[in-house]
Amino acid sequence: MIWFTEHWTENVGFSVKVNWAKRVKSPYQEIVILDTVEFGKMLVLDGLVQTTERDEFIYHEMLAHPPMVLHKNPERVLVIGGGDGGTVREILQHPSVKEVHLCEIDEMVIQVSREYLPSISSQLDNPKVKIFIQDGSKFLEERQNYYDVIIMDSSDPVGASQVLFSSEFYTKVKNSLREGGIMVAQTESPILQEEYFKNAYREISKVFKNVGVYLAYIPTYPSGMWSFTVASNDVNIRDTGKNVGRVKELKTKYFCDSIYNCLFALPKFVQQILNK
Amino acid sequence: MIWFTEHWTENVGFSVKVNWAKRVKSPYQEIVILDTVEFGKMLVLDGLVQTTERDEFIYHEMLAHPPMVLHKNPERVLVIGGGDGGTVREILQHPSVKEVHLCEIDEMVIQVSREYLPSISSQLDNPKVKIFIQDGSKFLEERQNYYDVIIMDSSDPVGASQVLFSSEFYTKVKNSLREGGIMVAQTESPILQEEYFKNAYREISKVFKNVGVYLAYIPTYPSGMWSFTVASNDVNIRDTGKNVGRVKELKTKYFCDSIYNCLFALPKFVQQILNK
Repeated sequence: MIWFTEHWTENVGFSVKVNWAKRVKSPYQEIVILDTVEFGKMLVLDGLVQTTERDEFIYHEMLAHPPMVLHKNPERVLVIGGGDGGTVREILQHPSVKEVHLCEIDEMVIQVSREYLPSISSQLDNPKVKIFIQDGSKFLEERQNYYDVIIMDSSDPVGASQVLFSSEFYTKVKNSLREGGIMVAQTESPILQEEYFKNAYREISKVFKNVGVYLAYIPTYPSGMWSFTVASNDVNIRDTGKNVGRVKELKTKYFCDSIYNCLFALPKFVQQILNK
Repeated sequence: MIWFTEHWTENVGFSVKVNWAKRVKSPYQEIVILDTVEFGKMLVLDGLVQTTERDEFIYHEMLAHPPMVLHKNPERVLVIGGGDGGTVREILQHPSVKEVHLCEIDEMVIQVSREYLPSISSQLDNPKVKIFIQDGSKFLEERQNYYDVIIMDSSDPVGASQVLFSSEFYTKVKNSLREGGIMVAQTESPILQEEYFKNAYREISKVFKNVGVYLAYIPTYPSGMWSFTVASNDVNIRDTGKNVGRVKELKTKYFCDSIYNCLFALPKFVQQILNK
Protein backbone atom coordinates (compact mmCIF):
# COMPACT_ATOMS: atom_id res chain seq x y z
CA MET A 1 0.00 0.00 0.00
CA ILE A 2 1.16 3.54 -0.78
CA TRP A 3 1.00 6.25 1.88
CA PHE A 4 1.23 9.98 1.16
CA THR A 5 2.49 12.23 3.97
CA GLU A 6 2.20 15.99 4.23
CA HIS A 7 4.54 17.54 6.76
CA TRP A 8 2.36 20.02 8.64
CA THR A 9 5.53 21.26 10.29
CA GLU A 10 9.03 19.75 10.32
CA ASN A 11 7.87 17.73 13.31
CA VAL A 12 4.30 16.71 12.48
CA GLY A 13 3.10 14.49 9.64
CA PHE A 14 -0.37 13.75 8.28
CA SER A 15 -0.59 10.56 6.21
CA VAL A 16 -3.27 9.00 4.05
CA LYS A 17 -3.44 5.61 2.39
CA VAL A 18 -3.54 5.92 -1.40
CA ASN A 19 -4.85 3.61 -4.12
CA TRP A 20 -3.15 5.44 -6.97
CA ALA A 21 -1.51 8.76 -7.80
CA LYS A 22 -1.26 10.91 -10.95
CA ARG A 23 1.44 13.53 -11.19
CA VAL A 24 1.95 16.40 -13.63
CA LYS A 25 4.31 19.35 -13.68
CA SER A 26 2.92 22.72 -14.67
CA PRO A 27 5.07 25.82 -15.26
CA TYR A 28 4.19 26.84 -11.68
CA GLN A 29 4.07 23.74 -9.53
CA GLU A 30 3.80 20.00 -9.17
CA ILE A 31 0.14 18.93 -9.38
CA VAL A 32 -0.78 15.56 -7.89
CA ILE A 33 -4.11 13.77 -7.72
CA LEU A 34 -4.27 11.01 -5.13
CA ASP A 35 -7.07 8.50 -4.85
CA THR A 36 -7.15 8.18 -1.05
CA VAL A 37 -9.08 5.51 0.84
CA GLU A 38 -10.42 7.83 3.55
CA PHE A 39 -11.00 11.15 1.79
CA GLY A 40 -11.65 10.22 -1.87
CA LYS A 41 -9.69 12.10 -4.53
CA MET A 42 -7.21 14.60 -3.12
CA LEU A 43 -5.56 17.53 -4.93
CA VAL A 44 -1.98 18.22 -3.82
CA LEU A 45 0.09 21.20 -5.05
CA ASP A 46 3.84 21.15 -4.37
CA GLY A 47 3.27 18.55 -1.65
CA LEU A 48 0.49 20.46 0.17
CA VAL A 49 -3.08 19.17 0.38
CA GLN A 50 -5.49 21.62 -1.28
CA THR A 51 -8.78 19.81 -1.19
CA THR A 52 -10.37 16.36 -0.95
CA GLU A 53 -13.71 15.08 -2.18
CA ARG A 54 -14.82 14.17 1.33
CA ASP A 55 -14.14 17.38 3.25
CA GLU A 56 -13.97 20.05 0.51
CA PHE A 57 -17.49 21.19 1.38
CA ILE A 58 -16.24 22.66 4.64
CA TYR A 59 -13.54 24.85 3.14
CA HIS A 60 -15.57 25.97 0.12
CA GLU A 61 -18.77 26.70 2.06
CA MET A 62 -16.94 28.58 4.79
CA LEU A 63 -14.82 30.57 2.35
CA ALA A 64 -17.70 31.60 0.08
CA HIS A 65 -20.90 31.92 2.10
CA PRO A 66 -20.00 34.29 4.95
CA PRO A 67 -18.93 37.19 2.67
CA MET A 68 -21.72 36.41 0.19
CA VAL A 69 -24.40 36.51 2.92
CA LEU A 70 -22.91 39.58 4.60
CA HIS A 71 -23.14 41.48 1.30
CA LYS A 72 -26.58 43.00 0.76
CA ASN A 73 -26.86 42.00 -2.91
CA PRO A 74 -23.76 40.39 -4.44
CA GLU A 75 -23.92 40.48 -8.25
CA ARG A 76 -20.28 40.51 -9.39
CA VAL A 77 -17.89 38.13 -7.67
CA LEU A 78 -14.20 37.46 -8.24
CA VAL A 79 -12.27 34.38 -7.09
CA ILE A 80 -8.48 34.61 -7.16
CA GLY A 81 -6.92 31.16 -7.19
CA GLY A 82 -9.51 28.45 -6.64
CA GLY A 83 -8.87 26.60 -9.91
CA ASP A 84 -10.58 23.46 -8.58
CA GLY A 85 -13.90 25.29 -8.91
CA GLY A 86 -15.36 24.55 -5.46
CA THR A 87 -15.66 28.19 -4.46
CA VAL A 88 -17.30 29.09 -7.77
CA ARG A 89 -19.84 26.30 -7.23
CA GLU A 90 -20.82 27.72 -3.81
CA ILE A 91 -21.00 31.34 -5.08
CA LEU A 92 -23.49 30.28 -7.75
CA GLN A 93 -25.94 29.18 -5.07
CA HIS A 94 -26.67 32.86 -4.41
CA PRO A 95 -29.47 33.93 -6.77
CA SER A 96 -28.36 37.58 -6.92
CA VAL A 97 -25.10 36.64 -8.68
CA LYS A 98 -24.84 37.80 -12.29
CA GLU A 99 -21.18 37.07 -13.05
CA VAL A 100 -18.37 35.13 -11.44
CA HIS A 101 -14.82 35.75 -12.58
CA LEU A 102 -12.21 33.13 -11.76
CA CYS A 103 -8.63 34.35 -12.02
CA GLU A 104 -6.28 31.37 -11.76
CA ILE A 105 -2.62 31.61 -12.70
CA ASP A 106 -2.17 27.89 -13.43
CA GLU A 107 -4.42 26.55 -16.17
CA MET A 108 -3.34 22.98 -15.44
CA VAL A 109 -4.97 23.10 -12.01
CA ILE A 110 -8.28 23.72 -13.77
CA GLN A 111 -7.66 20.97 -16.32
CA VAL A 112 -6.73 18.42 -13.67
CA SER A 113 -9.74 19.38 -11.54
CA ARG A 114 -12.12 19.05 -14.48
CA GLU A 115 -10.79 15.58 -15.17
CA TYR A 116 -10.43 14.14 -11.65
CA LEU A 117 -12.66 16.26 -9.38
CA PRO A 118 -15.94 16.56 -11.30
CA SER A 119 -18.07 17.12 -8.17
CA ILE A 120 -15.90 20.09 -7.23
CA SER A 121 -15.37 21.62 -10.68
CA SER A 122 -18.97 20.99 -11.75
CA GLN A 123 -19.98 24.65 -12.21
CA LEU A 124 -16.95 25.92 -14.11
CA ASP A 125 -18.95 25.77 -17.35
CA ASN A 126 -21.91 27.67 -15.91
CA PRO A 127 -22.72 30.56 -18.30
CA LYS A 128 -22.29 33.07 -15.45
CA VAL A 129 -18.64 32.02 -15.03
CA LYS A 130 -15.71 33.54 -16.92
CA ILE A 131 -12.24 32.07 -16.44
CA PHE A 132 -9.08 34.19 -16.73
CA ILE A 133 -5.69 32.49 -16.79
CA GLN A 134 -3.72 35.36 -15.38
CA ASP A 135 -1.74 36.70 -12.45
CA GLY A 136 -4.20 37.88 -9.79
CA SER A 137 -2.33 41.05 -9.00
CA LYS A 138 -2.26 42.32 -12.58
CA PHE A 139 -5.86 41.27 -13.11
CA LEU A 140 -7.01 43.45 -10.22
CA GLU A 141 -5.19 46.51 -11.58
CA GLU A 142 -7.33 46.33 -14.71
CA ARG A 143 -10.62 46.20 -12.79
CA GLN A 144 -11.11 49.15 -10.47
CA ASN A 145 -14.32 49.68 -8.51
CA TYR A 146 -16.04 46.65 -10.03
CA TYR A 147 -16.71 43.70 -7.72
CA ASP A 148 -19.13 43.17 -4.83
CA VAL A 149 -17.23 40.26 -3.33
CA ILE A 150 -13.60 39.21 -3.87
CA ILE A 151 -12.53 35.81 -2.57
CA MET A 152 -8.85 34.96 -2.12
CA ASP A 153 -8.82 31.20 -2.61
CA SER A 154 -5.05 30.92 -2.71
CA SER A 155 -2.65 28.19 -1.74
CA ASP A 156 -0.24 28.73 1.16
CA PRO A 157 1.86 31.92 1.25
CA VAL A 158 4.93 30.32 -0.29
CA GLY A 159 6.09 30.41 -3.92
CA ALA A 160 3.60 31.87 -6.41
CA SER A 161 1.07 32.76 -3.69
CA GLN A 162 3.40 34.72 -1.40
CA VAL A 163 2.55 38.09 -2.94
CA LEU A 164 -1.15 37.47 -2.24
CA PHE A 165 -0.57 37.99 1.49
CA SER A 166 0.84 41.56 1.44
CA SER A 167 -0.85 44.91 2.15
CA GLU A 168 0.16 46.06 -1.36
CA PHE A 169 -1.93 43.26 -2.74
CA TYR A 170 -4.88 43.87 -0.39
CA THR A 171 -4.87 47.53 -1.48
CA LYS A 172 -5.47 46.33 -5.04
CA VAL A 173 -8.29 44.15 -3.77
CA LYS A 174 -9.83 47.14 -2.01
CA ASN A 175 -9.59 49.27 -5.16
CA SER A 176 -11.34 46.60 -7.20
CA LEU A 177 -14.32 46.47 -4.85
CA ARG A 178 -17.24 48.78 -5.46
CA GLU A 179 -19.38 50.40 -2.76
CA GLY A 180 -20.51 47.93 -0.13
CA GLY A 181 -17.84 45.46 -1.24
CA ILE A 182 -16.45 42.66 0.93
CA MET A 183 -13.33 40.52 0.60
CA VAL A 184 -12.35 37.28 2.28
CA ALA A 185 -9.09 35.33 2.33
CA GLN A 186 -8.07 31.94 3.67
CA THR A 187 -5.43 32.79 6.26
CA GLU A 188 -3.86 29.52 7.44
CA SER A 189 -3.84 27.69 10.78
CA PRO A 190 -3.62 29.79 13.96
CA ILE A 191 -2.12 26.76 15.74
CA LEU A 192 0.60 25.50 13.39
CA GLN A 193 1.10 28.59 11.20
CA GLU A 194 0.67 31.35 13.74
CA GLU A 195 3.10 33.73 12.03
CA TYR A 196 1.39 33.52 8.63
CA PHE A 197 -2.00 33.92 10.28
CA LYS A 198 -1.00 36.94 12.33
CA ASN A 199 0.78 38.50 9.38
CA ALA A 200 -2.20 38.10 7.03
CA TYR A 201 -4.51 39.68 9.62
CA ARG A 202 -2.12 42.58 10.16
CA GLU A 203 -1.69 43.25 6.44
CA ILE A 204 -5.45 43.12 5.81
CA SER A 205 -6.05 45.43 8.79
CA LYS A 206 -3.68 48.02 7.29
CA VAL A 207 -6.00 48.34 4.30
CA PHE A 208 -9.56 47.72 5.52
CA LYS A 209 -11.51 49.44 8.32
CA ASN A 210 -13.65 46.46 9.33
CA VAL A 211 -11.86 43.13 9.71
CA GLY A 212 -13.05 39.89 11.27
CA VAL A 213 -11.57 36.41 11.66
CA TYR A 214 -13.54 33.19 11.73
CA LEU A 215 -12.61 29.52 11.88
CA ALA A 216 -13.69 26.16 10.51
CA TYR A 217 -12.80 22.53 11.22
CA ILE A 218 -10.93 21.11 8.21
CA PRO A 219 -9.54 17.66 9.02
CA THR A 220 -7.08 17.51 6.10
CA TYR A 221 -5.47 20.92 6.79
CA PRO A 222 -2.68 21.46 9.36
CA SER A 223 -4.01 21.16 12.93
CA GLY A 224 -7.62 20.87 11.71
CA MET A 225 -8.28 24.51 12.70
CA TRP A 226 -8.42 26.82 9.70
CA SER A 227 -8.84 30.59 9.63
CA PHE A 228 -10.56 32.99 7.24
CA THR A 229 -10.29 36.77 7.36
CA VAL A 230 -13.19 38.85 6.04
CA ALA A 231 -12.92 42.61 5.53
CA SER A 232 -14.73 45.65 4.21
CA ASN A 233 -14.32 49.39 4.25
CA ASP A 234 -17.99 50.30 4.42
CA VAL A 235 -19.90 47.21 5.61
CA ASN A 236 -20.11 46.26 9.28
CA ILE A 237 -19.12 42.66 8.71
CA ARG A 238 -19.68 41.79 12.37
CA ASP A 239 -23.44 42.21 12.05
CA THR A 240 -24.29 38.56 11.37
CA GLY A 241 -27.89 39.19 12.35
CA LYS A 242 -28.43 40.65 8.91
CA ASN A 243 -29.48 38.73 5.81
CA VAL A 244 -29.77 35.57 7.92
CA GLY A 245 -32.91 34.58 6.02
CA ARG A 246 -30.74 33.93 2.96
CA VAL A 247 -28.74 31.27 4.83
CA LYS A 248 -31.70 28.88 4.92
CA GLU A 249 -31.94 28.94 1.11
CA LEU A 250 -28.45 27.48 0.70
CA LYS A 251 -27.82 23.78 0.14
CA THR A 252 -24.97 23.26 2.57
CA LYS A 253 -23.51 20.60 4.85
CA TYR A 254 -21.49 22.81 7.22
CA PHE A 255 -22.57 26.46 7.04
CA CYS A 256 -25.95 27.16 8.66
CA ASP A 257 -27.82 29.70 10.81
CA SER A 258 -26.07 28.81 14.02
CA ILE A 259 -22.60 28.86 12.44
CA TYR A 260 -23.42 32.25 10.87
CA ASN A 261 -24.73 33.74 14.10
CA CYS A 262 -21.59 32.64 15.96
CA LEU A 263 -19.18 33.32 13.10
CA PHE A 264 -16.77 35.49 15.09
CA ALA A 265 -16.71 33.50 18.36
CA LEU A 266 -13.02 32.71 18.75
CA PRO A 267 -11.08 30.75 21.38
CA LYS A 268 -9.24 33.10 23.70
CA PHE A 269 -5.75 32.22 22.42
CA VAL A 270 -6.78 33.06 18.85
CA GLN A 271 -8.09 36.46 19.97
CA GLN A 272 -4.79 36.98 21.77
CA ILE A 273 -2.75 36.23 18.66
CA LEU A 274 -4.74 38.92 16.82
CA ASN A 275 -4.22 41.47 19.59
CA LYS A 276 -0.46 40.95 19.77
CA MET B 1 15.01 10.57 14.46
CA ILE B 2 12.10 8.60 15.93
CA TRP B 3 8.58 9.17 14.71
CA PHE B 4 5.44 8.02 16.54
CA THR B 5 2.30 7.43 14.46
CA GLU B 6 -1.26 7.10 15.68
CA HIS B 7 -3.63 5.58 13.16
CA TRP B 8 -6.72 7.77 13.33
CA THR B 9 -8.41 5.22 11.11
CA GLU B 10 -6.94 2.31 9.14
CA ASN B 11 -6.30 4.81 6.37
CA VAL B 12 -5.14 7.97 8.14
CA GLY B 13 -2.01 8.47 10.23
CA PHE B 14 -0.90 11.31 12.50
CA SER B 15 2.84 11.38 13.20
CA VAL B 16 5.04 13.35 15.54
CA LYS B 17 8.82 13.55 15.82
CA VAL B 18 10.04 12.26 19.15
CA ASN B 19 13.21 12.90 21.17
CA TRP B 20 12.72 10.00 23.56
CA ALA B 21 10.06 7.58 24.79
CA LYS B 22 9.35 5.82 28.12
CA ARG B 23 7.13 2.78 28.15
CA VAL B 24 5.52 0.91 31.05
CA LYS B 25 2.92 -1.83 31.20
CA SER B 26 0.15 -1.52 33.79
CA PRO B 27 -2.38 -4.28 34.51
CA TYR B 28 -4.78 -2.39 32.23
CA GLN B 29 -2.80 -0.96 29.35
CA GLU B 30 0.48 0.14 27.82
CA ILE B 31 1.42 3.60 29.06
CA VAL B 32 3.88 5.61 26.98
CA ILE B 33 5.34 9.06 27.54
CA LEU B 34 6.84 10.65 24.42
CA ASP B 35 8.94 13.76 24.41
CA THR B 36 7.72 15.25 21.13
CA VAL B 37 9.35 18.17 19.35
CA GLU B 38 6.10 19.94 18.43
CA PHE B 39 3.75 19.22 21.32
CA GLY B 40 6.03 18.70 24.33
CA LYS B 41 5.43 15.60 26.46
CA MET B 42 2.67 13.37 25.17
CA LEU B 43 0.76 10.68 27.08
CA VAL B 44 -0.22 7.66 24.96
CA LEU B 45 -2.40 4.79 26.22
CA ASP B 46 -2.50 1.59 24.13
CA GLY B 47 -1.23 3.56 21.14
CA LEU B 48 -3.78 6.39 21.40
CA VAL B 49 -2.81 9.99 22.18
CA GLN B 50 -4.47 11.14 25.43
CA THR B 51 -2.94 14.53 26.02
CA THR B 52 0.07 16.71 25.22
CA GLU B 53 1.64 19.57 27.14
CA ARG B 54 1.04 22.00 24.30
CA ASP B 55 -2.63 21.47 23.54
CA GLU B 56 -3.99 19.84 26.74
CA PHE B 57 -5.50 23.15 27.82
CA ILE B 58 -8.10 22.91 25.07
CA TYR B 59 -9.42 19.49 26.05
CA HIS B 60 -9.31 20.08 29.80
CA GLU B 61 -10.86 23.54 29.71
CA MET B 62 -13.61 22.50 27.34
CA LEU B 63 -14.40 19.32 29.26
CA ALA B 64 -14.51 20.97 32.70
CA HIS B 65 -15.71 24.55 32.39
CA PRO B 66 -18.99 24.29 30.44
CA PRO B 67 -20.70 21.97 32.99
CA MET B 68 -19.09 23.81 35.92
CA VAL B 69 -20.36 27.19 34.72
CA LEU B 70 -23.80 25.85 33.78
CA HIS B 71 -24.23 24.56 37.35
CA LYS B 72 -25.50 27.23 39.71
CA ASN B 73 -23.13 26.37 42.56
CA PRO B 74 -20.94 23.28 42.05
CA GLU B 75 -19.51 22.04 45.36
CA ARG B 76 -18.98 18.31 44.87
CA VAL B 77 -17.41 17.17 41.64
CA LEU B 78 -16.46 13.70 40.40
CA VAL B 79 -14.04 12.91 37.58
CA ILE B 80 -14.11 9.37 36.19
CA GLY B 81 -10.86 8.57 34.39
CA GLY B 82 -8.70 11.66 34.00
CA GLY B 83 -5.67 10.25 35.83
CA ASP B 84 -3.38 12.87 34.29
CA GLY B 85 -5.03 15.47 36.54
CA GLY B 86 -5.75 18.16 33.96
CA THR B 87 -9.51 18.11 34.50
CA VAL B 88 -9.07 18.28 38.29
CA ARG B 89 -6.82 21.31 37.85
CA GLU B 90 -9.50 23.15 35.87
CA ILE B 91 -12.32 22.21 38.27
CA LEU B 92 -10.37 23.73 41.16
CA GLN B 93 -10.49 27.13 39.48
CA HIS B 94 -14.15 27.36 40.52
CA PRO B 95 -14.27 28.88 44.01
CA SER B 96 -17.53 27.14 45.00
CA VAL B 97 -15.86 23.71 44.83
CA LYS B 98 -15.47 21.95 48.20
CA GLU B 99 -14.40 18.50 47.12
CA VAL B 100 -13.17 16.84 43.95
CA HIS B 101 -13.18 13.06 43.71
CA LEU B 102 -11.01 11.45 41.06
CA CYS B 103 -11.92 7.84 40.28
CA GLU B 104 -9.24 6.32 38.06
CA ILE B 105 -8.96 2.59 37.47
CA ASP B 106 -5.24 2.63 36.60
CA GLU B 107 -2.97 3.97 39.35
CA MET B 108 0.04 3.90 37.03
CA VAL B 109 -1.50 6.59 34.81
CA ILE B 110 -1.47 8.89 37.84
CA GLN B 111 2.10 7.92 38.77
CA VAL B 112 3.40 8.48 35.25
CA SER B 113 1.57 11.83 34.99
CA ARG B 114 2.96 13.02 38.32
CA GLU B 115 6.45 12.20 37.12
CA TYR B 116 6.38 13.37 33.51
CA LEU B 117 3.47 15.83 33.24
CA PRO B 118 3.84 18.10 36.27
CA SER B 119 2.04 21.07 34.69
CA ILE B 120 -1.00 18.86 34.06
CA SER B 121 -1.01 16.87 37.33
CA SER B 122 -0.12 19.91 39.45
CA GLN B 123 -3.31 19.96 41.53
CA LEU B 124 -3.62 16.28 42.39
CA ASP B 125 -2.26 17.00 45.87
CA ASN B 126 -4.66 19.85 46.50
CA PRO B 127 -6.39 19.22 49.86
CA LYS B 128 -9.81 19.38 48.19
CA VAL B 129 -8.90 16.38 46.00
CA LYS B 130 -9.43 12.74 46.96
CA ILE B 131 -8.17 10.00 44.65
CA PHE B 132 -9.90 6.61 44.39
CA ILE B 133 -8.22 3.80 42.49
CA GLN B 134 -11.35 1.97 41.51
CA ASP B 135 -13.68 0.91 38.74
CA GLY B 136 -15.90 3.90 37.89
CA SER B 137 -19.07 1.88 37.58
CA LYS B 138 -18.82 0.30 41.05
CA PHE B 139 -17.74 3.60 42.56
CA LEU B 140 -20.93 5.29 41.35
CA GLU B 141 -23.13 2.58 42.86
CA GLU B 142 -21.79 3.48 46.28
CA ARG B 143 -22.54 7.18 45.94
CA GLN B 144 -26.18 7.92 45.21
CA ASN B 145 -27.54 11.45 45.02
CA TYR B 146 -24.23 13.04 45.91
CA TYR B 147 -22.46 15.03 43.18
CA ASP B 148 -23.19 18.38 41.51
CA VAL B 149 -21.07 17.71 38.45
CA ILE B 150 -19.78 14.38 37.08
CA ILE B 151 -17.16 14.49 34.35
CA MET B 152 -16.44 11.45 32.18
CA ASP B 153 -12.79 11.94 31.29
CA SER B 154 -12.38 8.51 29.76
CA SER B 155 -10.20 7.16 27.01
CA ASP B 156 -11.78 5.87 23.80
CA PRO B 157 -14.67 3.40 24.01
CA VAL B 158 -12.50 0.33 23.53
CA GLY B 159 -11.06 -2.01 26.16
CA ALA B 160 -11.50 -0.89 29.79
CA SER B 161 -13.46 2.23 28.81
CA GLN B 162 -16.09 0.55 26.63
CA VAL B 163 -18.63 0.14 29.45
CA LEU B 164 -18.44 3.89 30.13
CA PHE B 165 -20.39 4.59 26.93
CA SER B 166 -23.60 2.60 27.67
CA SER B 167 -27.00 3.77 28.94
CA GLU B 168 -26.63 1.40 31.92
CA PHE B 169 -23.58 3.34 32.93
CA TYR B 170 -25.17 6.77 32.34
CA THR B 171 -28.09 5.69 34.55
CA LYS B 172 -25.60 5.19 37.37
CA VAL B 173 -24.19 8.64 36.64
CA LYS B 174 -27.68 10.12 36.83
CA ASN B 175 -28.36 8.38 40.16
CA SER B 176 -25.15 9.76 41.63
CA LEU B 177 -26.06 13.36 40.78
CA ARG B 178 -28.03 15.37 43.29
CA GLU B 179 -30.66 18.00 42.41
CA GLY B 180 -29.46 20.44 39.77
CA GLY B 181 -26.69 18.05 38.78
CA ILE B 182 -24.95 18.06 35.40
CA MET B 183 -22.77 15.49 33.66
CA VAL B 184 -20.44 15.78 30.72
CA ALA B 185 -18.57 13.18 28.66
CA GLN B 186 -15.97 13.36 25.93
CA THR B 187 -17.71 11.70 22.98
CA GLU B 188 -15.12 11.30 20.21
CA SER B 189 -14.77 12.79 16.72
CA PRO B 190 -17.96 13.32 14.68
CA ILE B 191 -15.86 13.14 11.51
CA LEU B 192 -13.67 10.06 11.96
CA GLN B 193 -15.62 8.23 14.71
CA GLU B 194 -19.17 9.02 13.69
CA GLU B 195 -20.58 5.74 15.04
CA TYR B 196 -19.07 6.16 18.53
CA PHE B 197 -20.21 9.76 18.63
CA LYS B 198 -23.78 8.99 17.56
CA ASN B 199 -23.96 6.03 19.91
CA ALA B 200 -22.76 8.01 22.94
CA TYR B 201 -25.31 10.75 22.22
CA ARG B 202 -28.10 8.22 21.84
CA GLU B 203 -27.21 6.37 25.06
CA ILE B 204 -26.98 9.62 27.05
CA SER B 205 -30.28 10.81 25.57
CA LYS B 206 -31.99 7.63 26.82
CA VAL B 207 -31.18 8.64 30.38
CA PHE B 208 -31.20 12.45 30.57
CA LYS B 209 -33.95 14.90 29.58
CA ASN B 210 -31.69 17.78 28.54
CA VAL B 211 -28.74 16.90 26.32
CA GLY B 212 -26.43 19.14 24.33
CA VAL B 213 -23.36 18.57 22.16
CA TYR B 214 -20.50 21.00 21.74
CA LEU B 215 -17.15 20.88 19.94
CA ALA B 216 -13.57 22.01 20.35
CA TYR B 217 -10.51 22.12 18.10
CA ILE B 218 -7.95 19.59 19.38
CA PRO B 219 -5.07 19.24 16.93
CA THR B 220 -3.69 15.98 18.36
CA TYR B 221 -7.03 14.11 18.34
CA PRO B 222 -8.46 12.35 15.26
CA SER B 223 -9.65 14.91 12.66
CA GLY B 224 -9.02 17.82 15.03
CA MET B 225 -12.77 18.13 15.73
CA TRP B 226 -13.69 16.76 19.15
CA SER B 227 -17.13 16.42 20.72
CA PHE B 228 -18.43 16.70 24.27
CA THR B 229 -21.94 15.80 25.42
CA VAL B 230 -23.39 17.60 28.43
CA ALA B 231 -26.63 16.47 30.09
CA SER B 232 -28.95 17.09 33.01
CA ASN B 233 -32.37 16.04 34.14
CA ASP B 234 -33.38 19.29 35.78
CA VAL B 235 -31.10 22.03 34.44
CA ASN B 236 -31.70 23.71 31.09
CA ILE B 237 -28.13 23.27 29.90
CA ARG B 238 -28.81 25.27 26.72
CA ASP B 239 -29.19 28.51 28.65
CA THR B 240 -25.62 29.73 28.27
CA GLY B 241 -26.67 33.27 29.11
CA LYS B 242 -26.66 32.25 32.75
CA ASN B 243 -23.69 32.48 35.10
CA VAL B 244 -21.67 34.07 32.30
CA GLY B 245 -20.07 36.45 34.82
CA ARG B 246 -18.18 33.52 36.32
CA VAL B 247 -16.44 32.84 32.99
CA LYS B 248 -14.40 36.02 33.23
CA GLU B 249 -12.92 34.88 36.57
CA LEU B 250 -11.31 31.82 34.99
CA LYS B 251 -7.68 31.73 33.89
CA THR B 252 -8.09 30.08 30.53
CA LYS B 253 -6.53 30.02 27.08
CA TYR B 254 -9.43 28.61 25.05
CA PHE B 255 -12.74 28.86 26.94
CA CYS B 256 -14.14 32.39 27.17
CA ASP B 257 -17.38 34.40 27.01
CA SER B 258 -17.78 34.11 23.28
CA ILE B 259 -17.10 30.36 23.24
CA TYR B 260 -19.59 29.89 26.10
CA ASN B 261 -22.30 31.99 24.42
CA CYS B 262 -21.93 29.98 21.21
CA LEU B 263 -21.34 26.62 22.88
CA PHE B 264 -24.04 24.71 21.01
CA ALA B 265 -23.52 26.20 17.54
CA LEU B 266 -22.85 23.10 15.43
CA PRO B 267 -22.04 22.62 11.75
CA LYS B 268 -25.07 21.31 9.89
CA PHE B 269 -23.65 17.83 9.26
CA VAL B 270 -23.01 17.34 12.98
CA GLN B 271 -26.61 18.30 13.76
CA GLN B 272 -27.71 15.84 11.09
CA ILE B 273 -25.71 13.00 12.65
CA LEU B 274 -27.49 13.65 15.96
CA ASN B 275 -30.93 13.71 14.31
CA LYS B 276 -30.40 10.40 12.48
